[in-house]
Amino acid sequence: MEIFEKIESEVQSYARSFPCVFNRAKNEFLYDDAGNEYLDFLAGAGTLNYGHNNDAFKPALLHYIESDGISHGLDMHTKAKEEFLHALNDKILKPRDLNYVVQFTGPTGTNAVEAALKLARNVTGRENIISFTNGFHGVSLGSLATTGNSHHRGAAGTSLGGVSRLPFDGYLGDEVDTTEYLDKVLCDTSSGIDLPAAVLVETVQGEGGINAASFEWLKNLEKVCRKHDVLLIVDDIQAGCGRTGSFFSFEGADIKPDMITMSKSLSGYGLPFAVVMIRPDLDQWKPGEHNGTFRGNNLAFITAKAAIDTFWSDNQFAQEIQAKGEYISKRLEAIVEQYGEGNFTTRGRGMFQGINCVSGELAAQITQKCFKNGLIIETSGADGQVVKFLCPLTIKQENLEKGIDIVESAIKEVCAKEDEIPEDNCYFDTVYLQEAS
Amino acid sequence: MEIFEKIESEVQSYARSFPCVFNRAKNEFLYDDAGNEYLDFLAGAGTLNYGHNNDAFKPALLHYIESDGISHGLDMHTKAKEEFLHALNDKILKPRDLNYVVQFTGPTGTNAVEAALKLARNVTGRENIISFTNGFHGVSLGSLATTGNSHHRGAAGTSLGGVSRLPFDGYLGDEVDTTEYLDKVLCDTSSGIDLPAAVLVETVQGEGGINAASFEWLKNLEKVCRKHDVLLIVDDIQAGCGRTGSFFSFEGADIKPDMITMSKSLSGYGLPFAVVMIRPDLDQWKPGEHNGTFRGNNLAFITAKAAIDTFWSDNQFAQEIQAKGEYISKRLEAIVEQYGEGNFTTRGRGMFQGINCVSGELAAQITQKCFKNGLIIETSGADGQVVKFLCPLTIKQENLEKGIDIVESAIKEVCAKEDEIPEDNCYFDTVYLQEAS
Amino acid sequence: MEIFEKIESEVQSYARSFPCVFNRAKNEFLYDDAGNEYLDFLAGAGTLNYGHNNDAFKPALLHYIESDGISHGLDMHTKAKEEFLHALNDKILKPRDLNYVVQFTGPTGTNAVEAALKLARNVTGRENIISFTNGFHGVSLGSLATTGNSHHRGAAGTSLGGVSRLPFDGYLGDEVDTTEYLDKVLCDTSSGIDLPAAVLVETVQGEGGINAASFEWLKNLEKVCRKHDVLLIVDDIQAGCGRTGSFFSFEGADIKPDMITMSKSLSGYGLPFAVVMIRPDLDQWKPGEHNGTFRGNNLAFITAKAAIDTFWSDNQFAQEIQAKGEYISKRLEAIVEQYGEGNFTTRGRGMFQGINCVSGELAAQITQKCFKNGLIIETSGADGQVVKFLCPLTIKQENLEKGIDIVESAIKEVCAKEDEIPEDNCYFDTVYLQEAS
Amino acid sequence: MEIFEKIESEVQSYARSFPCVFNRAKNEFLYDDAGNEYLDFLAGAGTLNYGHNNDAFKPALLHYIESDGISHGLDMHTKAKEEFLHALNDKILKPRDLNYVVQFTGPTGTNAVEAALKLARNVTGRENIISFTNGFHGVSLGSLATTGNSHHRGAAGTSLGGVSRLPFDGYLGDEVDTTEYLDKVLCDTSSGIDLPAAVLVETVQGEGGINAASFEWLKNLEKVCRKHDVLLIVDDIQAGCGRTGSFFSFEGADIKPDMITMSKSLSGYGLPFAVVMIRPDLDQWKPGEHNGTFRGNNLAFITAKAAIDTFWSDNQFAQEIQAKGEYISKRLEAIVEQYGEGNFTTRGRGMFQGINCVSGELAAQITQKCFKNGLIIETSGADGQVVKFLCPLTIKQENLEKGIDIVESAIKEVCAKEDEIPEDNCYFDTVYLQEAS
Repeated sequence: MEIFEKIESEVQSYARSFPCVFNRAKNEFLYDDAGNEYLDFLAGAGTLNYGHNNDAFKPALLHYIESDGISHGLDMHTKAKEEFLHALNDKILKPRDLNYVVQFTGPTGTNAVEAALKLARNVTGRENIISFTNGFHGVSLGSLATTGNSHHRGAAGTSLGGVSRLPFDGYLGDEVDTTEYLDKVLCDTSSGIDLPAAVLVETVQGEGGINAASFEWLKNLEKVCRKHDVLLIVDDIQAGCGRTGSFFSFEGADIKPDMITMSKSLSGYGLPFAVVMIRPDLDQWKPGEHNGTFRGNNLAFITAKAAIDTFWSDNQFAQEIQAKGEYISKRLEAIVEQYGEGNFTTRGRGMFQGINCVSGELAAQITQKCFKNGLIIETSGADGQVVKFLCPLTIKQENLEKGIDIVESAIKEVCAKEDEIPEDNCYFDTVYLQEAS
Repeated sequence: MEIFEKIESEVQSYARSFPCVFNRAKNEFLYDDAGNEYLDFLAGAGTLNYGHNNDAFKPALLHYIESDGISHGLDMHTKAKEEFLHALNDKILKPRDLNYVVQFTGPTGTNAVEAALKLARNVTGRENIISFTNGFHGVSLGSLATTGNSHHRGAAGTSLGGVSRLPFDGYLGDEVDTTEYLDKVLCDTSSGIDLPAAVLVETVQGEGGINAASFEWLKNLEKVCRKHDVLLIVDDIQAGCGRTGSFFSFEGADIKPDMITMSKSLSGYGLPFAVVMIRPDLDQWKPGEHNGTFRGNNLAFITAKAAIDTFWSDNQFAQEIQAKGEYISKRLEAIVEQYGEGNFTTRGRGMFQGINCVSGELAAQITQKCFKNGLIIETSGADGQVVKFLCPLTIKQENLEKGIDIVESAIKEVCAKEDEIPEDNCYFDTVYLQEAS
Repeated sequence: MEIFEKIESEVQSYARSFPCVFNRAKNEFLYDDAGNEYLDFLAGAGTLNYGHNNDAFKPALLHYIESDGISHGLDMHTKAKEEFLHALNDKILKPRDLNYVVQFTGPTGTNAVEAALKLARNVTGRENIISFTNGFHGVSLGSLATTGNSHHRGAAGTSLGGVSRLPFDGYLGDEVDTTEYLDKVLCDTSSGIDLPAAVLVETVQGEGGINAASFEWLKNLEKVCRKHDVLLIVDDIQAGCGRTGSFFSFEGADIKPDMITMSKSLSGYGLPFAVVMIRPDLDQWKPGEHNGTFRGNNLAFITAKAAIDTFWSDNQFAQEIQAKGEYISKRLEAIVEQYGEGNFTTRGRGMFQGINCVSGELAAQITQKCFKNGLIIETSGADGQVVKFLCPLTIKQENLEKGIDIVESAIKEVCAKEDEIPEDNCYFDTVYLQEAS
Repeated sequence: MEIFEKIESEVQSYARSFPCVFNRAKNEFLYDDAGNEYLDFLAGAGTLNYGHNNDAFKPALLHYIESDGISHGLDMHTKAKEEFLHALNDKILKPRDLNYVVQFTGPTGTNAVEAALKLARNVTGRENIISFTNGFHGVSLGSLATTGNSHHRGAAGTSLGGVSRLPFDGYLGDEVDTTEYLDKVLCDTSSGIDLPAAVLVETVQGEGGINAASFEWLKNLEKVCRKHDVLLIVDDIQAGCGRTGSFFSFEGADIKPDMITMSKSLSGYGLPFAVVMIRPDLDQWKPGEHNGTFRGNNLAFITAKAAIDTFWSDNQFAQEIQAKGEYISKRLEAIVEQYGEGNFTTRGRGMFQGINCVSGELAAQITQKCFKNGLIIETSGADGQVVKFLCPLTIKQENLEKGIDIVESAIKEVCAKEDEIPEDNCYFDTVYLQEAS
């Protein structure tokens, strides 16, 4: 550990929650250098939907490297890219009646968001972007402007402009459909919300606290966008690749975004990879306008294709996710009823769920206790108040049960100690607001 | 090729210059799916300093994957990261009497630049960044503001603020030391150039046209920074990892930057990877303030360590680069004298050299002809007017010679056809300016 | 007229609505060069609360000029300024138990707003400013960022940053107290609304369509500001100087803003003049940090003092305004009931009232008809949909009645011709939203 | 004085240098309330080119007010405006073969600059504005971005974007024509200086330290603008209205700016007034796009017309200014030779001259001594290092001589006490730079 203390930057975060040196991983398990096993309910923050080092993809990756396949080729055409595009087109896009061109951006989610925002602004000639309360879209400067978190925003050291913030689904209470507010400000030429190039939205906000927009809200959002000729960009970086029960998270809402950003689990093997999918007529990029050394990542093409072939050639995997999602829902609701004295609530969709503990401190106590019991699990939300269940989609049922058992015990233990939920001046106002409206 | 035309975005660039489907690569050679061999003088735009799929690193990579080493671990500690840090510290930093902490950013150069700019702004409480004419630092919004190229800047679709542009070494002619201009505007409280957080500089501007700053200019730049308490950030993404003849490109100037951004060849194997090296007292990051799913890349740790061990355990490799660099200089000077009627000039340092053909059209004709003769080589500069020699540092002498021969022939052929250098109204003014000053 | 067509810029606006050449004015009347008389229900857009060339101030102004009083003195101390400050302090501030220092900015409302925003940002070290839907605060770049109107915003030609837009009182329907939404986003560290330096608000939005915030909403707004340590700036440029029935428009809400911007009627005689009133401990300006050649305007000091002495030495004038305000309310309500088939609504407070005709086209027909009948009256609101009653506060009762009679007839005439209110797709959605919420 | 200390903001500046209460002024003299007389070499910072309360304009102003001429009329047509436009067109524009339309902006210089920048950006569709080192164009946010002074810039509290800073004439030493540098960055598509909407320049920088651009430089600047299709805006707010020896300061350079901003002495009587003159085809304003309550100022129309009629009906006044300017030059050069041990230098043109004392402290001692001897004179420049001679153009020769005598004595006295010029680390570097280049 010494070298990390000595020369790794203070910016590290997960390393603080899980202070071990890991050196091996398989499926839903991580192993540290002392040989301890950890059940992984974090899954690379949504990057390991197919688990660690999935044996379904590993041979293809090894073979590619062994045979001196192109490791790095800038944005040149390669066999590996060709085959990935075929798989994507044949098994993902066509069966869903979707028609997109694919931009290979720098291999990070934030880079895909940067590209999508640029294109939306250039195609429309407008600067403004609508993003939502509690949205998270990355921390490079263009994306950061759309991200809500003040911890990350505060690090910019410069102005974050060109973005208007609107309330996400449910933010003004259940009575208010916030897409109507959006419609109103876009109708109102004196609202001060400049007509935007695009609306950027996560269907389920991961970092923002596992806030799932209803399908109806998403449908309405699409309608408002169409009405005002505003592009709809779904940031499916965390919610996509099956996490919510379908390959794209918006399938249940029956909408067709103008652009989709994807990354995280897209490579299947945890390798850096990101794309923007673009409605063909919007693909008005000039050559090289948005570039980057690692745009595309050939090793990732190999595993991404294998992931598509393995899991998305038919509907079976989606059904499994949905089944597990229902199991998770049932368990979490039972926990919430049992403990937390009515203060805990469940949230999310599919295998993208959480328990809102209201207090970040409480949630942190729970996840720390889980780690002591061999479970890696994290929190999200503005104050880290949501315990986030983000296990591999491929997890064995017994391990899923085991992981939830560990959380349940941790909650039980923590709640036993807590006489009361810590008071939070702001929290109660929020509740008041929701009741009042 | 059909699938690329059908569903890959128009943003592609290199794929247009080299319209093949590549599927194998080894050392300084690429092979397309028809089995044609191409000598690679582009080397992933500086990402493949050790050539393609170097056999010195490949077994380590294969073994790591085979043994289910951590592929993805967010920023958690791993054995692979630990060993990389040891190698970096013991073989790179300590022998050069350098003392830095390492931030693992998103695995792209632009993300490292974004992080460095944020930190500089936060530590100093100042917003302004000085960057230079013809500088290139990436295209995510924070980096893009520091990048000079209007093709890329124009794609932003929003304001690029917080940056003041100063003339790079030589920009005002040989008579003017532009660091004195920098000093003057920083002394002058009414200059309109706000006291900056940092100066961001490439020692050799790659994309900007292979413009090498003199070591004296770099020394003076460091002095001006120290005088005004401004941080000096060297963007060594393209010029670093040995490209100019030493691991860091600034070693010859005997300066100690406050931060260094690295990427491209750092992984050794073309894998996405980037770091910021930070003077320890400046490492004032709060946990997770700058984050990203793929920060660090464990596969890259493996090959990066192997690259350091293999090539930087002693001084031999640096000497080989310098020798090859001298050979390149000699050859290019000879070409320039022979052809181009005095209009061509050489530029660069070490194995980071180019021929300025003044006209982008001319340069493009040359590189296209090279490609027909089996050489992959690109241009850089504002108008693509510089033919850029960027072969792997590990290239065999015979292949280096062969590549330059191909360029020489191409120039000969192109110049034979050209009655005159195309007139460029702006070019002649520029020449006039340099003569006048 | 020829010279105006020939060499006055196309930017002119009111000159288009009232195409005469005026050359004399007295109290509530304007006269053109053909000797025609016009009753003035525009009153310099709120600048002539005491009517044109009020005889109560005129002699003092003439005497000052005749005796070579200082016409221009930059920000030097003058007798005229001294006496104005005494009057302001003794007759306005002290009786209301208010304690402010006075900054003489450039003599325009927008300049006062620029100054207030700068000071708020500097004192708090925060960049963000909250302003409201339909707010209007001027069109120089700093103020323009806080202004909602897209016609004006669109002219910026550059980014308008540093401002977050929140819904004004009533914007989300009567059921939602939008200060609770403000409270929520300020509590929520992931809302994307950065903690602001200040909230900038008009108590009655003039240009935005005569939208009067309730006193309760203003009280709540102050509470939210205090809770989050955010400054409250009341822009009283149009609503102040008695327009709503008290010298400051916020007196009825019993709040104490941290800063107040004033201009328009402050000089009493229509002369350019503006100030910022600042809570003393916030007056952290460094000498000359915000400057301007005409800061203060000595001729205006003379008439502003006379206006305070004449109208604000006791409570009588306020009572007269309130009485006239009630008369206006009664008349407008009667009109609204009679015509417009239930689509017209009244809005405003005191002598700052309007009729919302929903359609800008309709409202324009009405004001054009009024002009033909010798009444100068204008519209406001995003689409010019509100007929704005803004006569001098000193208007004789018979002329007030006469003016309203003219409007009533115009409405009658226009409505007779209209078979139906023109359909406006956005309008009906808005109504829908308000009903739904 | 008590009331000023009690309730006037700390932002005051000139009031600190001249701590009296003034109450009367005539021509080149100010009088305080104790009856003391002060010779005025500040002249409202260039606002009182015709002296205080000039008897040539005063009767017209009094008559207008007495006869209830329009005091305030928003932007409606008035007889007063009509007559001003005729005078301007017939006596200023036509005789100089200039063809402009006139925009009446808010009555401050900064508002005129804001308008000009907006129009330039809108007409060209470009955001960037070039302004120069040491330029001063006002402190509202749009103008402030173009202003060089860090004291004022630092007060913004938000980003000042959309402006690139280039070196003014002489900034890089006498050998470098900085318009060639401008040409170079505009030719160079990778310079990082985006193609600007406009270049904004003062022919003589007043606040920046009385830096006079040579006519040749101005001609070259116009050429570079024409070559790149960039608008040329001359900010003639301080240098115009005869200050440098001709009505417009650029007449000697024989250039035709695309826009001209004017204010300060335009009204002739020190009244708030500002205009933008616009090449007719650029007048693409939409109605009311840039507005403001006090745009135009009818009292100012009256005195501005009188000033044009009185002073600019023939060439006599210009000749008088030139003669006085030559006298000032001679005297200042003699002073500079005699005192200051070679460190003092003269600068400026016409009656817009200064002595650069290098040290701001020294210059302040000189002006303070002058004030004790009944002369009001100020400094300018980044460090207040330039003693600025800015007396009314109409000053009697004997008073001009007397004022310079007072300065000369003050310098003598101050220099007698100073053993040496205070060392200024930055200053000497600057000298070094100029010698080296």
